[in-house]
Amino acid sequence: MKATRQRVVVRSVRPEVAGGRFPAKVIAGRPVEVRADILCDSHDVLAAVARWRPAGAKRWFETPLALDVNDSWSGSFTPPELGRYQLTIDAWVDHLATWRRDLRKKAEAEVVEELDLRTGAELVEALLPQASAAVSRRLEQLVAALTDPGLELTTRVDAGLSDELIDLAAPLDPRHESVRYDRVVEIVAERPLAGFSTWYELFPRSASTEPDTHGTLRDVIDRLDHVTSMGFDVLYLPPIHPIGEQHRKGRNNVVNAGPDDPGSPWAIGSRHGGHTSIHPELGTMEDFRALKAACDEHGVELALDIAFQCAPDHPYVTEHPEWFKERPDGSIQYAENPPKKYQDIYPLNFETSDPDGLWNELRSIFEFWLAEGVRVFRVDNPHTKSLAFWQWCLDDLSRRYPDTIFLAEAFTRPKLMYELAMRGFNNSYTYFTWRRHKWEIEAYYTELTQTDVVDFFRPNSWPNTPDILTDQLQYGGRPMYVQRLVLAATLTANYGMYGPAFELMWSEARPGSEEYLDNEKYEIKRWDVDQPHSLREVIALINRIRHAHPALQQDRTLTFHHVDNDQLLLYSKSDEVSGDVILVAVNLDPHHVQAGMTWLDLDALGVADDEEFEVHDLFAGGTYRWSGGENYVELEPHISPAHVFEVRTHSTEHDHERNR
Amino acid sequence: MKATRQRVVVRSVRPEVAGGRFPAKVIAGRPVEVRADILCDSHDVLAAVARWRPAGAKRWFETPLALDVNDSWSGSFTPPELGRYQLTIDAWVDHLATWRRDLRKKAEAEVVEELDLRTGAELVEALLPQASAAVSRRLEQLVAALTDPGLELTTRVDAGLSDELIDLAAPLDPRHESVRYDRVVEIVAERPLAGFSTWYELFPRSASTEPDTHGTLRDVIDRLDHVTSMGFDVLYLPPIHPIGEQHRKGRNNVVNAGPDDPGSPWAIGSRHGGHTSIHPELGTMEDFRALKAACDEHGVELALDIAFQCAPDHPYVTEHPEWFKERPDGSIQYAENPPKKYQDIYPLNFETSDPDGLWNELRSIFEFWLAEGVRVFRVDNPHTKSLAFWQWCLDDLSRRYPDTIFLAEAFTRPKLMYELAMRGFNNSYTYFTWRRHKWEIEAYYTELTQTDVVDFFRPNSWPNTPDILTDQLQYGGRPMYVQRLVLAATLTANYGMYGPAFELMWSEARPGSEEYLDNEKYEIKRWDVDQPHSLREVIALINRIRHAHPALQQDRTLTFHHVDNDQLLLYSKSDEVSGDVILVAVNLDPHHVQAGMTWLDLDALGVADDEEFEVHDLFAGGTYRWSGGENYVELEPHISPAHVFEVRTHSTEHDHERNR
Repeated sequence: MKATRQRVVVRSVRPEVAGGRFPAKVIAGRPVEVRADILCDSHDVLAAVARWRPAGAKRWFETPLALDVNDSWSGSFTPPELGRYQLTIDAWVDHLATWRRDLRKKAEAEVVEELDLRTGAELVEALLPQASAAVSRRLEQLVAALTDPGLELTTRVDAGLSDELIDLAAPLDPRHESVRYDRVVEIVAERPLAGFSTWYELFPRSASTEPDTHGTLRDVIDRLDHVTSMGFDVLYLPPIHPIGEQHRKGRNNVVNAGPDDPGSPWAIGSRHGGHTSIHPELGTMEDFRALKAACDEHGVELALDIAFQCAPDHPYVTEHPEWFKERPDGSIQYAENPPKKYQDIYPLNFETSDPDGLWNELRSIFEFWLAEGVRVFRVDNPHTKSLAFWQWCLDDLSRRYPDTIFLAEAFTRPKLMYELAMRGFNNSYTYFTWRRHKWEIEAYYTELTQTDVVDFFRPNSWPNTPDILTDQLQYGGRPMYVQRLVLAATLTANYGMYGPAFELMWSEARPGSEEYLDNEKYEIKRWDVDQPHSLREVIALINRIRHAHPALQQDRTLTFHHVDNDQLLLYSKSDEVSGDVILVAVNLDPHHVQAGMTWLDLDALGVADDEEFEVHDLFAGGTYRWSGGENYVELEPHISPAHVFEVRTHSTEHDHERNR
Repeated sequence: MKATRQRVVVRSVRPEVAGGRFPAKVIAGRPVEVRADILCDSHDVLAAVARWRPAGAKRWFETPLALDVNDSWSGSFTPPELGRYQLTIDAWVDHLATWRRDLRKKAEAEVVEELDLRTGAELVEALLPQASAAVSRRLEQLVAALTDPGLELTTRVDAGLSDELIDLAAPLDPRHESVRYDRVVEIVAERPLAGFSTWYELFPRSASTEPDTHGTLRDVIDRLDHVTSMGFDVLYLPPIHPIGEQHRKGRNNVVNAGPDDPGSPWAIGSRHGGHTSIHPELGTMEDFRALKAACDEHGVELALDIAFQCAPDHPYVTEHPEWFKERPDGSIQYAENPPKKYQDIYPLNFETSDPDGLWNELRSIFEFWLAEGVRVFRVDNPHTKSLAFWQWCLDDLSRRYPDTIFLAEAFTRPKLMYELAMRGFNNSYTYFTWRRHKWEIEAYYTELTQTDVVDFFRPNSWPNTPDILTDQLQYGGRPMYVQRLVLAATLTANYGMYGPAFELMWSEARPGSEEYLDNEKYEIKRWDVDQPHSLREVIALINRIRHAHPALQQDRTLTFHHVDNDQLLLYSKSDEVSGDVILVAVNLDPHHVQAGMTWLDLDALGVADDEEFEVHDLFAGGTYRWSGGENYVELEPHISPAHVFEVRTHSTEHDHERNR
């Protein structure tokens, strides 16, 4: 019963995901902000610490929390390395601090009484048994000063209010009425790449520079200089496994493939093998290892696409028919989205009679590629596989290979996307491609970064994919490409693109759709990346800015600023550690000049109300001296649809000088 | 391991308070809306039920949930009587419904195949073993129709899509992959008075009609006709216990009382007794019982004020010095808010060495008055007593006396007010008196009624109390009194007033403060309630409207509507069961006519987009024919600062006719 008598309460702890059901995601080596509401009856002064430790460790570390406003407390700790951590909070009534606060008020009102000083002396004396001899001696001197009627009252009060008293006494605090938060919150510290990454997708089949030749994994090696020259650090390949031969789709997704049609890489499995084999036309396992080694040399991560579905000739179909759904005639159920039928793909049945076998086999596919050194996976359509499977699989793999990153390719309903992230995906595709109006972008990215979503869902923004070519890109021309590039690259710290198509602004769609015409999914393309209209230099520039500016390497500080023109979007990001602040202005109209007056949230920019400051456009060039919240912005989309301003205040310049 | 393999997930259940740590509050006999996010991988059709039962019962009842939008499901159940209930949710994959949805799509696209029909037949056949003989026979006939190649395809499809099939099959549903929500949510069903009440506060000391005479509890009996004639159903008395004689405060809260000063009723306890005794000048326990009986006859609840604090001469001080804080000289610590001192009040020390004794004694005070039939308590300053104590005390008492209502008088920080409500207070005072601008009222009452706060915190709005006379009422005149009356009475279903002072518009404050001059807390007043300027008829009118209109007897449907004038506030409330809809327009400016165009949320009013409707002003009279969202409103505050419109649509008129 004693435990329920304590006066202090801890509530609304952050980070905490879905009421503590899932771990919160943070980055190893970076400070984690801890927040809680801490309450007590009456008006006592409270104290609180966050307690944290690596999961499995015996000892807890403590970091102090401080009261911000309205019973909300905060502090931070830095998980030193990858892995799981535990977090909880202790809070208690600080009787000595309460007495000092009241003494200060009474001293200001000149109503201090003898008994007030004796009350404080008793509080300090109660601490002496826990003190070292030296501390005890000094505290006794302070108590003597407090209680000596021969001294001036102000001298005695000063002894009670001295910093020394609290410095010596605080470590001895008996933590009256101390309570512990009723949950231990789990936190997973991921590698920096999970929080800041730049993805480039290409089809190895099109990597050859020879005409009419099927590209190979070796050809991809020759592309690495091009990819890394633009500042990408993840190279993502669509599935590299044998492509089904039965019911293979032809060019433009027609039902029957011609004899030379290469088929879709997502129709996985044939007589040449399944998810742990390599498509013969792409090369061998030796070629794969050579590519992996070349990626390592180039400092780029090789990301594989894992799509848990099977072509009709995948070995699983004959070896494990029980993993698929049987139709009344004994045939296997192909994928359907009625009335559409996908006879080239057999979905796995997670209501199988052999869940152990299926789950272990699917996990073993990851294990196979992990053993080959792959640490980044783009997972195809995870929302059509059991959520319970993902939780089991990703939890296990992330404990054994904590440097692994799983990107969820789930373009589905919002709550299902969030659920997948909670179940363990480290990165998630977003609705970015379909958020185009100012209010849509503001609402969506505010939800992603300024609510508890930020604790479990890491957005990865893509302006295009092999499946998505929006009408914006089809008709918006270069201004739209540059606009969408800047938005993707600066709204979220993780972003990527279906590279060759984006950099060359390939915009031909199947009429009336948002799908590429002559989609590379069903045929081999030749990309001449040296064409003069290429965006490669623009892409390289925005990626250099991202790499140089810590503000763009995180999501939590995103702040939208008001500007009195619905075609202008204005937002900032900042980095507390370095003091770096970036302010981005984007003209959402690809056709016309747009101008407007800003109404800046100066706090978010680290600028004082009356301070002059400089904004230097890292993207289009130019430096402007601004002051106050109201400033003029104008953007001609054909020249540059965006400013990417570095915000320089007097104090940041000062910092720069000091750092030299 | 099996349990974790299920595909369906239940999240974000409502009502659920603080992650299931406290019961949610509902009203017995009224429908409780249950909400949850229910998710599954892929695109299967799901089904779900809410399961509920009285706590301690063996059998669960089930009520179906339906998908609204975006994976959010809802339904409702009605707890039949007072007490605790348990709620959880079951959800599963509905294979038959999934098959029917797909069959319908295929039929529309005319691509139904033989195998599609056979798949459905197998699903139905699997249910037959659970069916009664009659149901089984009919289902077999439907299966025969489905699978008979001699019939027309449309006939066969119709058999599969027939309502009869689903009506017969649904009760047999094996609930594939069924999951249960991982918590059992506790709900407490309270009496209707907890959700809809109208409070009148008076000091019995001033109840006498004789000049210079101390009023008694018997005098209060004579006031009951007056109180009930205005439509109040709770009569709340400040503490009726013996008033301390040591350090008694004089008129206007001066430190030393004169010989005839009656002292503050909140300085409780003297040689005449403590919290279970009656102040001799008010009468005896027999008088109290007579008053209680008279209240019962008048249909008004008698509410007592329980203030857990002691005058220096309270019996506890000598009998239980361990329940108080001792100062270094052995004296007892009086209340302080440095530099202010309250020598007439000793706070109880919840860090006492005898918590068992203190907690039991305090609870016994409630038990004493509960035994006298009192069921409504206004609890003074609960935020200066241990939260853990309240949880223990209120939980226990509410189980033994489930018809009891505790109103928390805590004007403190918002999170502490919410915490007290979670710990068991059924009603709570609010910041109403300090919310005066349109944006403040909209923001505050939206938080109270449109967030999860509504599940545990029942706001009780008071325009004045003996402690609070805002400058608005000091200087706003009659228009302001009427405005604040209408706001309090229609924003929340629970409201109250410090009656005589309010109805007579007593507005004299201590200069520069929001406190009454010559406060009744420290002296006896004589209220001539028959003065011609009395608001009694206006109060009676608004209370009649409240009693006649179920829309005003609840808080959850509060909706603010746009009107293009910051001095005009516009909001509606509705009642789903009766169809009653009330729309309130208030001119917040007590001095000038204000007019504006509305932008009504027609959905909230139950009005179709193109429908003409009538708004009938129940308060100031007048009927207007409106259509669409844009209508004109104009209010002259000296005539009426408010419209209280009944919204009448063609359909509601129809209902009225039908009900005659």
